[in-house]
Amino acid sequence: MKKIPVGILGATGVVGQRFAQLLDNHPWFEVTVLTGSERNAGKPYGETCNWRIPGDPPAAMSSLPVLPTTADLPVKLVFSALPSPIAREWEPRLAQAGLAVCSNAAAFRNEPDVPLIIPEVNAEHIDLIPQQQERLGWKGFIVTSPNCTTTTAVMPLKPLHDAYHIEQVFITSLQAFSGAGYPGLSALDIQDNVIPYIAGEEEKMELETRILLSKYDPMRQLPDETIQVSAQANRVPVIDGHTVCLSVKFREKPDIAAISGLLTGYRGAEIVRQLPSAPVHPIIVRDEIDRPQPRRDRDTDHGMAATVGRIRPCPILDLRFVSVIHNAIRGAAGGAILNAELLAARGYLE
Amino acid sequence: MKKIPVGILGATGVVGQRFAQLLDNHPWFEVTVLTGSERNAGKPYGETCNWRIPGDPPAAMSSLPVLPTTADLPVKLVFSALPSPIAREWEPRLAQAGLAVCSNAAAFRNEPDVPLIIPEVNAEHIDLIPQQQERLGWKGFIVTSPNCTTTTAVMPLKPLHDAYHIEQVFITSLQAFSGAGYPGLSALDIQDNVIPYIAGEEEKMELETRILLSKYDPMRQLPDETIQVSAQANRVPVIDGHTVCLSVKFREKPDIAAISGLLTGYRGAEIVRQLPSAPVHPIIVRDEIDRPQPRRDRDTDHGMAATVGRIRPCPILDLRFVSVIHNAIRGAAGGAILNAELLAARGYLE
Amino acid sequence: MKKIPVGILGATGVVGQRFAQLLDNHPWFEVTVLTGSERNAGKPYGETCNWRIPGDPPAAMSSLPVLPTTADLPVKLVFSALPSPIAREWEPRLAQAGLAVCSNAAAFRNEPDVPLIIPEVNAEHIDLIPQQQERLGWKGFIVTSPNCTTTTAVMPLKPLHDAYHIEQVFITSLQAFSGAGYPGLSALDIQDNVIPYIAGEEEKMELETRILLSKYDPMRQLPDETIQVSAQANRVPVIDGHTVCLSVKFREKPDIAAISGLLTGYRGAEIVRQLPSAPVHPIIVRDEIDRPQPRRDRDTDHGMAATVGRIRPCPILDLRFVSVIHNAIRGAAGGAILNAELLAARGYLE
Amino acid sequence: MKKIPVGILGATGVVGQRFAQLLDNHPWFEVTVLTGSERNAGKPYGETCNWRIPGDPPAAMSSLPVLPTTADLPVKLVFSALPSPIAREWEPRLAQAGLAVCSNAAAFRNEPDVPLIIPEVNAEHIDLIPQQQERLGWKGFIVTSPNCTTTTAVMPLKPLHDAYHIEQVFITSLQAFSGAGYPGLSALDIQDNVIPYIAGEEEKMELETRILLSKYDPMRQLPDETIQVSAQANRVPVIDGHTVCLSVKFREKPDIAAISGLLTGYRGAEIVRQLPSAPVHPIIVRDEIDRPQPRRDRDTDHGMAATVGRIRPCPILDLRFVSVIHNAIRGAAGGAILNAELLAARGYLE
Repeated sequence: MKKIPVGILGATGVVGQRFAQLLDNHPWFEVTVLTGSERNAGKPYGETCNWRIPGDPPAAMSSLPVLPTTADLPVKLVFSALPSPIAREWEPRLAQAGLAVCSNAAAFRNEPDVPLIIPEVNAEHIDLIPQQQERLGWKGFIVTSPNCTTTTAVMPLKPLHDAYHIEQVFITSLQAFSGAGYPGLSALDIQDNVIPYIAGEEEKMELETRILLSKYDPMRQLPDETIQVSAQANRVPVIDGHTVCLSVKFREKPDIAAISGLLTGYRGAEIVRQLPSAPVHPIIVRDEIDRPQPRRDRDTDHGMAATVGRIRPCPILDLRFVSVIHNAIRGAAGGAILNAELLAARGYLE
Repeated sequence: MKKIPVGILGATGVVGQRFAQLLDNHPWFEVTVLTGSERNAGKPYGETCNWRIPGDPPAAMSSLPVLPTTADLPVKLVFSALPSPIAREWEPRLAQAGLAVCSNAAAFRNEPDVPLIIPEVNAEHIDLIPQQQERLGWKGFIVTSPNCTTTTAVMPLKPLHDAYHIEQVFITSLQAFSGAGYPGLSALDIQDNVIPYIAGEEEKMELETRILLSKYDPMRQLPDETIQVSAQANRVPVIDGHTVCLSVKFREKPDIAAISGLLTGYRGAEIVRQLPSAPVHPIIVRDEIDRPQPRRDRDTDHGMAATVGRIRPCPILDLRFVSVIHNAIRGAAGGAILNAELLAARGYLE
Repeated sequence: MKKIPVGILGATGVVGQRFAQLLDNHPWFEVTVLTGSERNAGKPYGETCNWRIPGDPPAAMSSLPVLPTTADLPVKLVFSALPSPIAREWEPRLAQAGLAVCSNAAAFRNEPDVPLIIPEVNAEHIDLIPQQQERLGWKGFIVTSPNCTTTTAVMPLKPLHDAYHIEQVFITSLQAFSGAGYPGLSALDIQDNVIPYIAGEEEKMELETRILLSKYDPMRQLPDETIQVSAQANRVPVIDGHTVCLSVKFREKPDIAAISGLLTGYRGAEIVRQLPSAPVHPIIVRDEIDRPQPRRDRDTDHGMAATVGRIRPCPILDLRFVSVIHNAIRGAAGGAILNAELLAARGYLE
Repeated sequence: MKKIPVGILGATGVVGQRFAQLLDNHPWFEVTVLTGSERNAGKPYGETCNWRIPGDPPAAMSSLPVLPTTADLPVKLVFSALPSPIAREWEPRLAQAGLAVCSNAAAFRNEPDVPLIIPEVNAEHIDLIPQQQERLGWKGFIVTSPNCTTTTAVMPLKPLHDAYHIEQVFITSLQAFSGAGYPGLSALDIQDNVIPYIAGEEEKMELETRILLSKYDPMRQLPDETIQVSAQANRVPVIDGHTVCLSVKFREKPDIAAISGLLTGYRGAEIVRQLPSAPVHPIIVRDEIDRPQPRRDRDTDHGMAATVGRIRPCPILDLRFVSVIHNAIRGAAGGAILNAELLAARGYLE
């Protein structure tokens, strides 16, 4: 099979670097375009990019020139690691020009016909694309992936919602600082400290959770009004790996003893299981009393699985548990790549 | 005024060291007895003690010999920094022998006639002492202070309970590792990591919160059955300072705009305000959006005040906020010393 | 005694904040002027300043307006926490206008008639001031304090140099990141890491050490050409407190057993011992095999003493030892304040 | 080719776990025996072992029973991760019983006929084995690998010694705490801190460096008396990856500009290049001014390469540079496995 040529927008930032790393030797996609800020234009990616994540820039991309973002990039699909204000400007232009845009930015996550997707959770929402194209008159389209902390919570919530219908969720997060990008947090602020605030994060978690768990409607993607979410976000001195503590109330009384099996057995839609970046088991349950832990569990299944533990009753609601994901892989670049694979598998890139 | 001679049980451990540090130059108490394990018996405290907290051993105590714990210590009051199993054995013997025991151990916290006290929260519960003495035929008595994380939550909950009556509290903690003692956590376990489990901690928080907020009953101290508490405990890479995120439901609808004033204005019982270790304001409210933070707020008012911030509504319940205290001072040695000052002020040490 | 009115240039940065903190309630100086960038001009210091060091802004300075730096500040002396390029522009203007400038910046450290001073090391060099004033036609003058890492090494080197004459010194530093200011290092760069490079640091250590140890010459302050210094600088994940490991060769064979007493007994010049910020013992020697340590020793004597340990022979040269200071206090603001106290005691502020 | 059955002594500790991880799917060796303490005897490795390193226990070893160490283990070769006192007792027994013992312990490193080996540095020293066997009357033998910090320094020193002959080396280390095993350092000791002492470490570095760089003598392996080494050891808050700063004096004047090429081009003996765990380039030189860094360079070539940077002249001696290795891989288990591969390639396991 001939690989699909793809681009990375904002390729020199830390999320862009993760895209480059995860797309190196990808079986379906070949990175042929890398964009960055004007001042780097024309320089080879390997020289321009101040590599901040483990390893080195992929050899295959090192000599590609960094281009300014324009509407006529010679690719089928772009991954957007643009900051939200720039994403808001450029993602529609590229979609209008016929490109598929898989965005990690928050800019369009809440538009009713821009699909917000975690393939194992709501693959079917991808079919909002024709509605989006029709309304806007675009040949291309935008698909988004959620905030990294939302993903940490929603992956294990999905099978529970299917089984028992979620009514209330309390989420308290302990988030790695790589989520703030580079330079992100000053070491003077976060070492030996907790910062109990991340701008916009709680609102995103409260809204996106309800969008992702909503029933598919071919016309619009709206938050499920029967679910209430209360989120509290904290930054902790962890490099990679978000942890969330959840308390959940269900419509149906859950069987606590069955929860572990329910999560472990969850596989998502048939089409998703075939995607090259999909983990065999989207949710791993650890039995040890003190897991999951971000440093020890973030890399499970190449950083694409959620790890869950401490499944136990709640004295007020029904169920408590803890979930961990790699915020920079499953929660950002890896999640958007899985969306792109779903687009390819569903024929949206033809 | 002649100072009251006091002892520290388990003086060589990290909590014992905090007692020594905080009792140095205390206006009411003079440390004349330090106990430790048999193998150190007779050696000067300054040589025996592997000092693990900031600063150096107090000069006034350095030459005191470390004694084995016995029932006939020549003091009026002892501060117990004993591990719980040893506390369970020795604290009753000392109380029976006529000593006042101010314990930081969990061993007797839940006995119905052993007062569990935070002076600003439930000073009046101290009057369970005669009931305890009568039942057990003791000349002395035991008074306990709560788990450090419980204290972090309960100090700001008290004025809210007084104003609106708490019905439900969700508490998620982000706890410093000094709470685990020395050597406590291996650096290999906690650096760049979160451990979402602390043995026994959640049960303590759920029970002690309800005991501390209960109405005074001269015969027994029981958990308030009208309050529900769900606690989730996490260890984070912070040296000192516990952080808790709370969501609270009240019987009366609270006025969110008034909460800050309510907390700032709270002073506790009249008698408590005169105690030498009592902070002027037990609760400090910070307006900055990203406070309280353990490293920046733990030392407020010599580590004896609770710092609160992020006061805001909860989408599910009524109120959310964050509280920070110094777990090793207010949450341990400092809390027990404040209890002892209350005993002295109330005449229980005469 | 009426206090001397002083100003802080660059008062809103982290070094400026340390100046404010250390000058609060100073017995000789009263801060009446605070300068900062244009955009903050006129706002009260307490509101403008994003406080990044422990505690809170001093109440006495909170309501002072932040002024732009000008040549006619109504004070006798200014402490300069300006970045070096701005210091290079403004410090001479203020000195010309008649002010005493105590600078923490590197801009003029190496000018032959601008004294580079650690009072306990080379107080007599202060008498270069008349030479400086004459050459430049200034009514005021500039006095500088050395780089923080140089100070860590030179404080204990001074009595050794007096006793045995230093010929060679190898210095390897392990430096706290507060030395880089705010925001300074990204947490993504320094957590779980070492950065074996700090721009300009090795050159400063190699040159300033030789200047500080040079004999007083009333005409110029030049590096001692009989001393060789090789420095290697590393940044480590420590908030405050620089550590240096030294190997030293002397002209005279040292008596290793006498070194500890030599360092402990060192007091500096008579006039320095009376200064209010001078530590009783500038050098503290710890006997424990694993000290000094930055977290445990940085605050010794209010952060103004150097702590030394691991005194032992070197298999190649004569002596090895380790020194720790608080880089932000003794190594920056505290050092400059001690210089100002020396100026006052010597009559240079009259 | 049929794989050689091998055992791991002390398989449940952290070094033992690294052996298990690195030997999983090894092309030449198959782990068939795992030994541990008596109390775990008979239990499956996967259940007994409290896994403290990244990932999970290898599936192929999880069901192997943990055996007590005995002299008749049914394998050809054992990797010893035993603590030194136990290694001192058991390694000779196993060698006497005919087994090849590849030890990571310090117990026999300094015996004149027990080869201390880094294959790229002194592969030819392996031929001391017959001398060892003859003297002791053993059918088997012991081969050792050096202390992890020594390895960090010696790998790049070797080609420099070949080219210019080293006369003096000053080494200051900044060592990761995984080198102290599990539980190893208390988080209360090392977070936000440096500990300038590691028991025995400096002596090991000073002696082993001179042994490894000595000329091959078929009768004995003695330290090179023409080389002087002064080492200073520090523990820093880094999980994995040792950093050393070196200053070196040579007999021949080195060409600083040629050093980078000399190190990059170094390959070691022909036979070593074919070993399955040998990195293609044992020494990687990074040109960035702020590299090598432990977190970013420790995993280079599966943790088996040394990364060098900051190559520059020394104002006192000839050359300075910085070296980083993964202490737990190249500096421990990986180094011993490479030794075993050398034994196999040289026919010592037939």
